[in-house]
Amino acid sequence: MRAVQVVGYHEALKMAEVPMPGITGPFDVVVRVGGAGVCRTDLHILEAQWAEKSQVQLPYTIGHENAGWVHAVGSAVTNVGVGDKVILHPLITCGLCRACRSGDDVHCETSQFPGLDTNGGYAEYILTSARSVVRIDDSLEPSDVAALADAGLTAYHAAAKAARRLTPRDTCVVIGAGGLGHIGIQVLRALTPARIVVVDRNADALDLARGIGAHEGVLADGSQVEKVLALTGGNGAEAVVDFVGEGGATTQGLAMLRRAGDYYVVGYGENIDVPTIDVISTEINIIGNLVGSYNDLQDLMALAARGAVTLHTQKYALNDFQQAIDDLEGGRVRGRAVLVP
Amino acid sequence: MRAVQVVGYHEALKMAEVPMPGITGPFDVVVRVGGAGVCRTDLHILEAQWAEKSQVQLPYTIGHENAGWVHAVGSAVTNVGVGDKVILHPLITCGLCRACRSGDDVHCETSQFPGLDTNGGYAEYILTSARSVVRIDDSLEPSDVAALADAGLTAYHAAAKAARRLTPRDTCVVIGAGGLGHIGIQVLRALTPARIVVVDRNADALDLARGIGAHEGVLADGSQVEKVLALTGGNGAEAVVDFVGEGGATTQGLAMLRRAGDYYVVGYGENIDVPTIDVISTEINIIGNLVGSYNDLQDLMALAARGAVTLHTQKYALNDFQQAIDDLEGGRVRGRAVLVP
Amino acid sequence: MRAVQVVGYHEALKMAEVPMPGITGPFDVVVRVGGAGVCRTDLHILEAQWAEKSQVQLPYTIGHENAGWVHAVGSAVTNVGVGDKVILHPLITCGLCRACRSGDDVHCETSQFPGLDTNGGYAEYILTSARSVVRIDDSLEPSDVAALADAGLTAYHAAAKAARRLTPRDTCVVIGAGGLGHIGIQVLRALTPARIVVVDRNADALDLARGIGAHEGVLADGSQVEKVLALTGGNGAEAVVDFVGEGGATTQGLAMLRRAGDYYVVGYGENIDVPTIDVISTEINIIGNLVGSYNDLQDLMALAARGAVTLHTQKYALNDFQQAIDDLEGGRVRGRAVLVP
Amino acid sequence: MRAVQVVGYHEALKMAEVPMPGITGPFDVVVRVGGAGVCRTDLHILEAQWAEKSQVQLPYTIGHENAGWVHAVGSAVTNVGVGDKVILHPLITCGLCRACRSGDDVHCETSQFPGLDTNGGYAEYILTSARSVVRIDDSLEPSDVAALADAGLTAYHAAAKAARRLTPRDTCVVIGAGGLGHIGIQVLRALTPARIVVVDRNADALDLARGIGAHEGVLADGSQVEKVLALTGGNGAEAVVDFVGEGGATTQGLAMLRRAGDYYVVGYGENIDVPTIDVISTEINIIGNLVGSYNDLQDLMALAARGAVTLHTQKYALNDFQQAIDDLEGGRVRGRAVLVP
Repeated sequence: MRAVQVVGYHEALKMAEVPMPGITGPFDVVVRVGGAGVCRTDLHILEAQWAEKSQVQLPYTIGHENAGWVHAVGSAVTNVGVGDKVILHPLITCGLCRACRSGDDVHCETSQFPGLDTNGGYAEYILTSARSVVRIDDSLEPSDVAALADAGLTAYHAAAKAARRLTPRDTCVVIGAGGLGHIGIQVLRALTPARIVVVDRNADALDLARGIGAHEGVLADGSQVEKVLALTGGNGAEAVVDFVGEGGATTQGLAMLRRAGDYYVVGYGENIDVPTIDVISTEINIIGNLVGSYNDLQDLMALAARGAVTLHTQKYALNDFQQAIDDLEGGRVRGRAVLVP
Repeated sequence: MRAVQVVGYHEALKMAEVPMPGITGPFDVVVRVGGAGVCRTDLHILEAQWAEKSQVQLPYTIGHENAGWVHAVGSAVTNVGVGDKVILHPLITCGLCRACRSGDDVHCETSQFPGLDTNGGYAEYILTSARSVVRIDDSLEPSDVAALADAGLTAYHAAAKAARRLTPRDTCVVIGAGGLGHIGIQVLRALTPARIVVVDRNADALDLARGIGAHEGVLADGSQVEKVLALTGGNGAEAVVDFVGEGGATTQGLAMLRRAGDYYVVGYGENIDVPTIDVISTEINIIGNLVGSYNDLQDLMALAARGAVTLHTQKYALNDFQQAIDDLEGGRVRGRAVLVP
Repeated sequence: MRAVQVVGYHEALKMAEVPMPGITGPFDVVVRVGGAGVCRTDLHILEAQWAEKSQVQLPYTIGHENAGWVHAVGSAVTNVGVGDKVILHPLITCGLCRACRSGDDVHCETSQFPGLDTNGGYAEYILTSARSVVRIDDSLEPSDVAALADAGLTAYHAAAKAARRLTPRDTCVVIGAGGLGHIGIQVLRALTPARIVVVDRNADALDLARGIGAHEGVLADGSQVEKVLALTGGNGAEAVVDFVGEGGATTQGLAMLRRAGDYYVVGYGENIDVPTIDVISTEINIIGNLVGSYNDLQDLMALAARGAVTLHTQKYALNDFQQAIDDLEGGRVRGRAVLVP
Repeated sequence: MRAVQVVGYHEALKMAEVPMPGITGPFDVVVRVGGAGVCRTDLHILEAQWAEKSQVQLPYTIGHENAGWVHAVGSAVTNVGVGDKVILHPLITCGLCRACRSGDDVHCETSQFPGLDTNGGYAEYILTSARSVVRIDDSLEPSDVAALADAGLTAYHAAAKAARRLTPRDTCVVIGAGGLGHIGIQVLRALTPARIVVVDRNADALDLARGIGAHEGVLADGSQVEKVLALTGGNGAEAVVDFVGEGGATTQGLAMLRRAGDYYVVGYGENIDVPTIDVISTEINIIGNLVGSYNDLQDLMALAARGAVTLHTQKYALNDFQQAIDDLEGGRVRGRAVLVP
């Protein structure tokens, strides 16, 4: 089959003919790829940023946001059958460690991450596990939802965590109305009655945010902290979900919080640097967020099935993978780029 | 009546004869002081560290850890009667704002703090509110529990918050086995089945910690992070309660955490400075802690009534206030110093 | 002022000229009534069903769903000012007992209930407390929201409790699409992403339910349990909120539950009669629901302010109180009847 | 190998020579039995009470409370190795359904129950799954803990659920100080600071209860409701955990509750029959409890490892199985009977 592989760092990806993955374990699932999201992390992989951490052997097939149709299943697989439309959770988890047994599988002690440390989805077929496949609604197409598998799932996870503590009287600030923020806003709108205030440097992104459910847009022009305080009677917001995490966003995000408020870290880049006296005197919380769990992905697909979360995608044939990469690097992708084998 | 007052910053406290407080409002409560804790914050007040923040007018009576007997009550007071033994919550709160209506009175929008911004308890009588008095068990003496009113309550609050997420398989690290840590360890022991590992620079403090319920003591000799990791199978602890917050404790505390672990900030001094990538990749939480609520104080007094939380106190006559201050400054107080009018 | 009073049981209400209430306590608030809901409970009061329980002395002014404008306030009132538009929580609570201090004021140990055990709101003015008044948005009129003060608040409380455990994959059944159910459906729609299935005997009520957000309507024609099971893949619903509580609704509601599901009792009348073996083998929960707290009323008014919860009302001049009572008894009120002084 | 089998209903069990179980699936685990608890349910099985529900084919090996040493493992088993001391969760669960993926494996959609619907542990070896084995501490012996696998786990589950809402000011009533109650009291003592009041018909059982941590014992002589009310200032208890569930216990247990209190159903037999008006006017909750999850068993074993939960056992050689059965039926077992192959 065809597969797009990393053949060397700081080199271009290369299309190769490789053997189709087969079923060897009882929980193995082979999926015919229907869509593979092209993510900024893929660019970082080529820049060798993940080489040491992943210890992956080259060449291998890239692509960690995948959806498609079940092609073959191992003997113990009961949750999906051949032909089912599925989206793939980005991790393959063990199912036996404490984290897996608690529904918190993202913290699995021995997980694999196809596309990073083993073969991924820029290919005609991909090998995954029964524990990683989520059936999607008949109304959804793999190529439309693939990009929700990682970026969307991360946004869902943080937004759903925030939603648990938000009431109709609360304000939730979303910093960054890009890819993740776009999903986060839709999720907050579906899960919580709180007022949603979106902060972004780009006025068009704010318009888009309002179009998908944000109640207020605040331009990040240097006065964003003051504006958020003004919108909250000088008190600050009960929650801030920061999808940026760099360029001063952490300091600004913390400054937007109300006493006893929660700051959700999703985007990353800079350090959080905050005096302990400020943390205790206002009794705020700083909450880390990783990609969502398998259950989160099921929940996100339930929202997608009823149209509550949508994503704009720009599709490319698998053979045009280089064009997709170039467009992403060149800022020419609106929404998410998806390869369709 | 006699009252020990702040008459100027960077000056000694002075005993004065002042009018007894009287009942003017319906929820007023006048308490005959039975014990007033002498706290390090009192030293900071004299050094003018709180002058700008509190905006208090000099002279005024210092002392914010108070217990005694109800002397007089306003017309609407129904929860205590004259003669009742009580401990005083450090704040006087409004009862009407959102925080007060939610049981989260510490975040009251218009609270007063006797001893900081209005007259406190280094005196024969103190004015407080029905909302701030907690009846104590017959078996307890005001001078024995007074120091639980603020320091003890802060430790209770953080330990009780941590306890909510701890199971029999978990480890909770306590950094600092001093005054607050001492209470925190006892509270954790009473509220949670988790293993308690105490970290301190002082070997005697570790012995004391083990005597009141800690399962393990780790000397903070530079290898404390490694030792905690070794005690937790290399994984780190589910919770770290940091009663120190300076001298590198925050970096070490964060390094002791397991994936998805919680770091509770109680002590303060230095900055928390942590890369966002570390916060998200391990999905840890940094949780601020202020003094406990009125309900927390009720709970702490329930533990004290059954002997589950005890505090060593060193008592001084009110007239010997300068000796108590000098002993505290000179490191000659074991447990807490308490003035007894 | 004019006030409609209970002058004897099994007698008609009577308009009387009574003294205006005045401020005597520091937290007293006198409200000029803008709307007073006419509730089925008012009919029960006249039938003496509450006489023993309330121990109220006749004559007294009836009416427990009130909203209006603040007319006068006691010396300690800081949360509202004269002229403010307010809705009244149905209880006057003490603020000092454990329940009040925990935000769970509905379980106040010494509450009063105007309209049941003290003078209510079928009058030009009513006396309440600072602890019972919630400011409403400028866009809302007292006569439009008055009926949310008790019936609406009860529905909000149960629906919000259910919402806390509902996810996008869950189904919540609402039994009864009448007055309370109507509010409950809107609240569920605002607070949860779960699918809402409404069960009612009346096909018109089901149409109305779908119009305000229900995803499915099931006619209660004897096959409603089967239909709910069919809609949930044979598993049953994660939550059932029962606004009926009689005529077999409790048995049917329990039969509609999934394993580990929650049955919320709101309506009442019959007994719950269930084998313990059924409760433990499916591990279901039966959850009682009383009227909502002060915080719940604040949250409900936040939803009302943005139009997320609306109520159809039929207004009558205060002088036409008998007509309103007659229309309610005769089933001629669409939505809720409200008296406007 | 030897195995004690059900060969017919209303017939005695019979020792048989059967083939040893072998590894066929990747997650299979064969355990050499070190102890198999003899439970009242085993008597009920012989009386055919489970025949229709379990649909088990005779003959089969009975015994559902098992512990021992790992003898062989399938190819995918990573959590235990040959020779490990383990206790067996009573269910074999799928790991793929929503319940399993949420840590709530007891509600697995396709579970098996060795000893009830497939071969159990009255034998030299038993087949189970990697998902069902919990390693126990070196200090524990399989024959000492085997009886915690089902009865103890049920008690743990209910007590731990109750503990989550109990504070130092609360009272938890335990109805029934027999086998389950005995474990429940120890668990409550380890997990919660609440006062524990035990109700039993047997004065000796109350003495025993006090010996393992109960604060108060109340003889169930007809005045138990009044006595519990008297012990709680007339208010009732915040929680009642009912290990009896028959003979009037449910009505009494509900009558012992405080407003907003929780009644935990564990024991079963009679119907709960309660007016809806009582459920809503006091806003109480009735909470079902099944056996604990895999995580619960891990937690219980952590408590057992440190001696916080102990169980008196009466041991019999496997060949003496009939004596054990006879002693259980004749009321001659103190604590739990355990067969040791």
